[in-house]
Amino acid sequence: MSRIEDFLREDIGEGDITSDALVGDRRGAAAIIARQECVVAGLEEASEAFTLLGLRVTPLAKDGERVRAGTAVLSVEGALRSILAGERVALNLLMRMSGIATATNDVLWACRERNPDVIVAATRKTTPGFRHFEKKAVMLGGGDPHRFGLDDAVLIKDNHLAVVGSITEAVARGRKVSFTKKVEVEVVSLDGAREAALAGADIILLDNMSPKDAAACRQAVKVISPGIIVEASGGITPSTAPEYAEAVDIISLGWLTHSVRAADLSMDITALKD
Amino acid sequence: MSRIEDFLREDIGEGDITSDALVGDRRGAAAIIARQECVVAGLEEASEAFTLLGLRVTPLAKDGERVRAGTAVLSVEGALRSILAGERVALNLLMRMSGIATATNDVLWACRERNPDVIVAATRKTTPGFRHFEKKAVMLGGGDPHRFGLDDAVLIKDNHLAVVGSITEAVARGRKVSFTKKVEVEVVSLDGAREAALAGADIILLDNMSPKDAAACRQAVKVISPGIIVEASGGITPSTAPEYAEAVDIISLGWLTHSVRAADLSMDITALKD
Amino acid sequence: MSRIEDFLREDIGEGDITSDALVGDRRGAAAIIARQECVVAGLEEASEAFTLLGLRVTPLAKDGERVRAGTAVLSVEGALRSILAGERVALNLLMRMSGIATATNDVLWACRERNPDVIVAATRKTTPGFRHFEKKAVMLGGGDPHRFGLDDAVLIKDNHLAVVGSITEAVARGRKVSFTKKVEVEVVSLDGAREAALAGADIILLDNMSPKDAAACRQAVKVISPGIIVEASGGITPSTAPEYAEAVDIISLGWLTHSVRAADLSMDITALKD
Amino acid sequence: MSRIEDFLREDIGEGDITSDALVGDRRGAAAIIARQECVVAGLEEASEAFTLLGLRVTPLAKDGERVRAGTAVLSVEGALRSILAGERVALNLLMRMSGIATATNDVLWACRERNPDVIVAATRKTTPGFRHFEKKAVMLGGGDPHRFGLDDAVLIKDNHLAVVGSITEAVARGRKVSFTKKVEVEVVSLDGAREAALAGADIILLDNMSPKDAAACRQAVKVISPGIIVEASGGITPSTAPEYAEAVDIISLGWLTHSVRAADLSMDITALKD
Amino acid sequence: MSRIEDFLREDIGEGDITSDALVGDRRGAAAIIARQECVVAGLEEASEAFTLLGLRVTPLAKDGERVRAGTAVLSVEGALRSILAGERVALNLLMRMSGIATATNDVLWACRERNPDVIVAATRKTTPGFRHFEKKAVMLGGGDPHRFGLDDAVLIKDNHLAVVGSITEAVARGRKVSFTKKVEVEVVSLDGAREAALAGADIILLDNMSPKDAAACRQAVKVISPGIIVEASGGITPSTAPEYAEAVDIISLGWLTHSVRAADLSMDITALKD
Amino acid sequence: MSRIEDFLREDIGEGDITSDALVGDRRGAAAIIARQECVVAGLEEASEAFTLLGLRVTPLAKDGERVRAGTAVLSVEGALRSILAGERVALNLLMRMSGIATATNDVLWACRERNPDVIVAATRKTTPGFRHFEKKAVMLGGGDPHRFGLDDAVLIKDNHLAVVGSITEAVARGRKVSFTKKVEVEVVSLDGAREAALAGADIILLDNMSPKDAAACRQAVKVISPGIIVEASGGITPSTAPEYAEAVDIISLGWLTHSVRAADLSMDITALKD
Repeated sequence: MSRIEDFLREDIGEGDITSDALVGDRRGAAAIIARQECVVAGLEEASEAFTLLGLRVTPLAKDGERVRAGTAVLSVEGALRSILAGERVALNLLMRMSGIATATNDVLWACRERNPDVIVAATRKTTPGFRHFEKKAVMLGGGDPHRFGLDDAVLIKDNHLAVVGSITEAVARGRKVSFTKKVEVEVVSLDGAREAALAGADIILLDNMSPKDAAACRQAVKVISPGIIVEASGGITPSTAPEYAEAVDIISLGWLTHSVRAADLSMDITALKD
Repeated sequence: MSRIEDFLREDIGEGDITSDALVGDRRGAAAIIARQECVVAGLEEASEAFTLLGLRVTPLAKDGERVRAGTAVLSVEGALRSILAGERVALNLLMRMSGIATATNDVLWACRERNPDVIVAATRKTTPGFRHFEKKAVMLGGGDPHRFGLDDAVLIKDNHLAVVGSITEAVARGRKVSFTKKVEVEVVSLDGAREAALAGADIILLDNMSPKDAAACRQAVKVISPGIIVEASGGITPSTAPEYAEAVDIISLGWLTHSVRAADLSMDITALKD
Repeated sequence: MSRIEDFLREDIGEGDITSDALVGDRRGAAAIIARQECVVAGLEEASEAFTLLGLRVTPLAKDGERVRAGTAVLSVEGALRSILAGERVALNLLMRMSGIATATNDVLWACRERNPDVIVAATRKTTPGFRHFEKKAVMLGGGDPHRFGLDDAVLIKDNHLAVVGSITEAVARGRKVSFTKKVEVEVVSLDGAREAALAGADIILLDNMSPKDAAACRQAVKVISPGIIVEASGGITPSTAPEYAEAVDIISLGWLTHSVRAADLSMDITALKD
Repeated sequence: MSRIEDFLREDIGEGDITSDALVGDRRGAAAIIARQECVVAGLEEASEAFTLLGLRVTPLAKDGERVRAGTAVLSVEGALRSILAGERVALNLLMRMSGIATATNDVLWACRERNPDVIVAATRKTTPGFRHFEKKAVMLGGGDPHRFGLDDAVLIKDNHLAVVGSITEAVARGRKVSFTKKVEVEVVSLDGAREAALAGADIILLDNMSPKDAAACRQAVKVISPGIIVEASGGITPSTAPEYAEAVDIISLGWLTHSVRAADLSMDITALKD
Repeated sequence: MSRIEDFLREDIGEGDITSDALVGDRRGAAAIIARQECVVAGLEEASEAFTLLGLRVTPLAKDGERVRAGTAVLSVEGALRSILAGERVALNLLMRMSGIATATNDVLWACRERNPDVIVAATRKTTPGFRHFEKKAVMLGGGDPHRFGLDDAVLIKDNHLAVVGSITEAVARGRKVSFTKKVEVEVVSLDGAREAALAGADIILLDNMSPKDAAACRQAVKVISPGIIVEASGGITPSTAPEYAEAVDIISLGWLTHSVRAADLSMDITALKD
Repeated sequence: MSRIEDFLREDIGEGDITSDALVGDRRGAAAIIARQECVVAGLEEASEAFTLLGLRVTPLAKDGERVRAGTAVLSVEGALRSILAGERVALNLLMRMSGIATATNDVLWACRERNPDVIVAATRKTTPGFRHFEKKAVMLGGGDPHRFGLDDAVLIKDNHLAVVGSITEAVARGRKVSFTKKVEVEVVSLDGAREAALAGADIILLDNMSPKDAAACRQAVKVISPGIIVEASGGITPSTAPEYAEAVDIISLGWLTHSVRAADLSMDITALKD
């Protein structure tokens, strides 16, 4: 039920020729250490990678937990050859996923200082083939994953409106897709927001609007439809996000998955057996 | 022969429910625009994504070319529904690959100002499942891909040496793997570098050394083996890389693939037909 | 982007040993004929099957169109060996998908005679591995596909409530999943329906209720939340469905995908060439 | 060695968002109950589905066994989240496979009352991608699976004869395929049956013939070749099948796999643990 | 519908680094030449390999044709980089398949000099993962493929008889599998052959018997069942095969697929364009 | 992490219809016996095949060990039906891999009698889809695997030189691929060898040269570059290989993988339980 095997195959290829030649059948143990404070994500995946290689894994932290620099987050035991063969895949999973979880969590708390109900969300601007893990990391950091793919909710964007011509007509068509799907509309003006709300949209996405304009839109559409949800998006970064916290319900950032720094983790051998 | 189909499937899932419901059978054209100066990478992949969806693609730039902000790098024509269904995957490929190519190229030229022969290389710290594309982006930016996987060259790291106990013995074992493979050894001291060179290593990797210490190691091992290659690695960033340019032959940065910012590109509809 | 190749491989295996041995390189044409009145579904899939085998296909009807008995719905031309090799897969796709589309459409019109706004929906009671095609057939017949899978909307069922203990608490948890997802709750009583509506559910699923009780529930929850959607489900068949048409917004039937009869279509050779 | 993992992936997608959010780490047990008398089929597959999700399964009946309404056929224990995630796939397998096994068995016994040696067989009119399981269900119901695919035996049909022109020539070509394969010929008349038998066919398929004509054909060909097998096919239903029981050796029905009703089974939670 | 893409991926991996670096975008043509007299097999597969790489292929011979040393069997034209990337896979397919086809054909004609009706057959002793192509090569050489796999016909071997205890009982069970399957029994004595024939076996496999004993068995079982087929197998080589030609109907040799020499073919560049 | 499952699926298909029908649920044990002296290879793979079928395996020899005729190399225990279903795949793996390992080892010792440092290597002339196992068998026989694929080292062949025009230029381009890759050049003359060595090639491949000419080339290039490696290749067979042992560092033979005889191993049932 997992893609981890593919990731191991990508790295190991015909075999870990170095470890096979140098390490023989010796057994031992190793630990993965967080080299910086971070929200750990990817422990489940790293554990699966080592388990697939026949090793015994003990997680020492929980996915979603914030740990200090120097914390051992996972230990692994068995054939050293397999520990070394799995090291890089395990670390690559942990470093990228923890980087995303940590950044999400940092942005979230910065925003919640201003509005405790605000939600921080990701986008579909993810690494091709790795979206599942990036969205999961966002959730472990306390964020909302937003749509997993194009089949997940109706999201009417500028390019759709350019084709259909009218927000009202576009929302009407979107509402026919399925009673199980929400309908979201991206707008760039107060008029657009009002038209979308009147047409029955469930969510309004305000694209590249200032916090002030966003707040005005939000006020206007909630009058029309009290349960409507208002999202701000478009070039928002960790430093500008908090400015939107009081203006909208949802702040979404592509940055969380496309430009985040990896967290720093590494692996040490902790025991050698004969 | 490609993974692009998987990437489309990841995003499209059961179908692009929005475009299917809104756009019908209308045809049109769109262009992808670079919103910042960048070295473009991923045009081949983006083209394949659109082609798989039955569209006609015209690349307007070449992979590896540096373009100005505002440049249209690709145009695509056909069913609007398919253009919109492929938009995100095409952009995600271009944004991440161009981000890596641009960063690689920037680091390279900063280093080459000091040493025109120096090589900038990537590492195996890549996004699981996406390594092929990240390594390719590094090459399009002028960088060296380094090992694609554990089967690619013998690279003896700290953890291997912890098991084997001796650099000399480790190199001897590594040299038996195959006459077609180079043997590289990671060392942390001048003594280690000398021992590795005497043992017949093809490449010495200096881990987390200062530029000054690295230069001293390089001088010492070239006396032992003139053809030997010296690589610096370990926490090097775009800002510290140039300091190593005169000290070593190769500078490798995990940063290029694990912490780079995406380049900014987006898609505009340029024509609507009936 | 399709599973049709797998379906061909399933049927053809090591080769169509009969056609290979008997038919040689002769070319010709064939037509697929509807042997009963039906809403055709699967033409796109059947066409793809023949195209993958190197044949030239001309659809003679549209997916979703209702045709009379005797109508030719598709013609195909090329190597007879390939036409015969693809015949069964093409027909199996058309027969099952048209059977579902026809039944959906028949139920829909029987219900719409009583309530022109009512929606007929499918369930997740589909043939394993073939859900995409069965849901598509439902849509071609005018039905709503309902959830494609467990990741598509939050649907709280009896077994979930048995674990959580309280409808209110269950809905509260469900609403935290993502702002992009609707929350539906299955209830068996008027009290349950009221509690779910007050807790903020988007959709109420009335399980195994009589049309009369369903209508009472609907009235009660619309008072609480005018935009709420009410669905009836549980053992509904084509003959009992119309009784629910005035009572609810949505009528869903597992029957449409798990117990439907295949439509009758067959293939005739229409031309032999040398 | 199984496709069950694909079926789980089809239903679970990005995750069972409802159970993940509501059920947490609670453990418990559940039972699958037959809601009607049926020949159970799919227990092996349902068990594998639950096992792949990390659960402990106890089958309470045997595949192929006829059970009364109300019988618990399988119990499962472990994380409730996983039990609920696997419920639908397990039930979809059991409902479709038991539906086929039960119908096969019912037809078989109705036919055997008239001729204890008659064989009831399936056809290749199966759901694309699911044939293996549908053929297995036929066998569990006591039926003969007939050909699994086009590589399984030589079966010369009307369309082949239209191309070759002569039954005698067609059988001659078919016999050259491999000495390991039987050769079957579909005929529509007594003359055709005789010609096929004289040409050396192993099996004669009588297409759309009345029971009386079929009996006459059978008598005629057994004179020519005592070991020859005679099969009736073409639009036969459970109600018409017994009329052929004394006329032929084999009665085959596409109906068994393309138009059968699912058996009624459901899952109840039987224990909640903390 | 093919495995050729996997074979290309196996050889090309991350890319043909040599041709990519040396050849650039130059175009040209190449021809594949048979360096020895042989029955060519694999042209269809080699053509597909080159076609998948975007090249234009012209077969210059037919699969199954015997050609002289020096014959050009295929020409290919397009990007030289792609021609060189596909060279080894194309040649590996042609060399192994032509080796098998040639050996099969040589054995066949040596046997047919003694008995023009005898059939030479392969076994299941094939290279794992490559059976389809090895069986096809046998057929192109004029041989019978025998069973493609364990689901293809009932073949009762020594180990089965060791379990069941009685040939008669084993054949009785085998005959119940399906009316579409032949039943073959491996025997080591005249008594065994007689028992199998009386039990209703379709084919008798004489294991490791001398030609003389085989002939005696054949005579005995044909008396019992005139249509029965007699096969000799077990350690037969190209040099011993003709001795069995008059004794049996079928001679099968594992040697044809497990110990055959590759045919000698190579590729020459025939044109360079700018 | 393995392809063994695919190999089982290739052979078993829809099921081992013979063993399923004859053997029922009886349990027992079997042993695999080497019928000739050989270097065993494939025990790990054969063990995995049986393990995947739910059996308990005990290896009785080690991969790479030379055993006498009559040695039991593996025993297996469990459901007889599964033992028989896995027999052929296990034997096919062992027979082909042991055949290659034995031939490699025989050639190696014949060569080492003349030059104890010489290396015997394979080529890329392998069975499509099975290269990993053939290269592994070569290594188990004491040989060098050479390149696993086109991405493994730069190897400039005659066809590349025909395009580039100059050995010096070709090597220069090849050296730019990556500092981690060796550069090998195929030459046909002393002049070519010298030019390649002066251009900085790491390995010189002497194609179809006599041992005497090869020795002269080797002497010449070692003067230019003492660390350079010299390989002989092209039509070398087990009988001609030793003649090259004193002339070069590496002798490579396509014969080892494309024309080797399978080793003789078979399986006996050793115990029947009720």
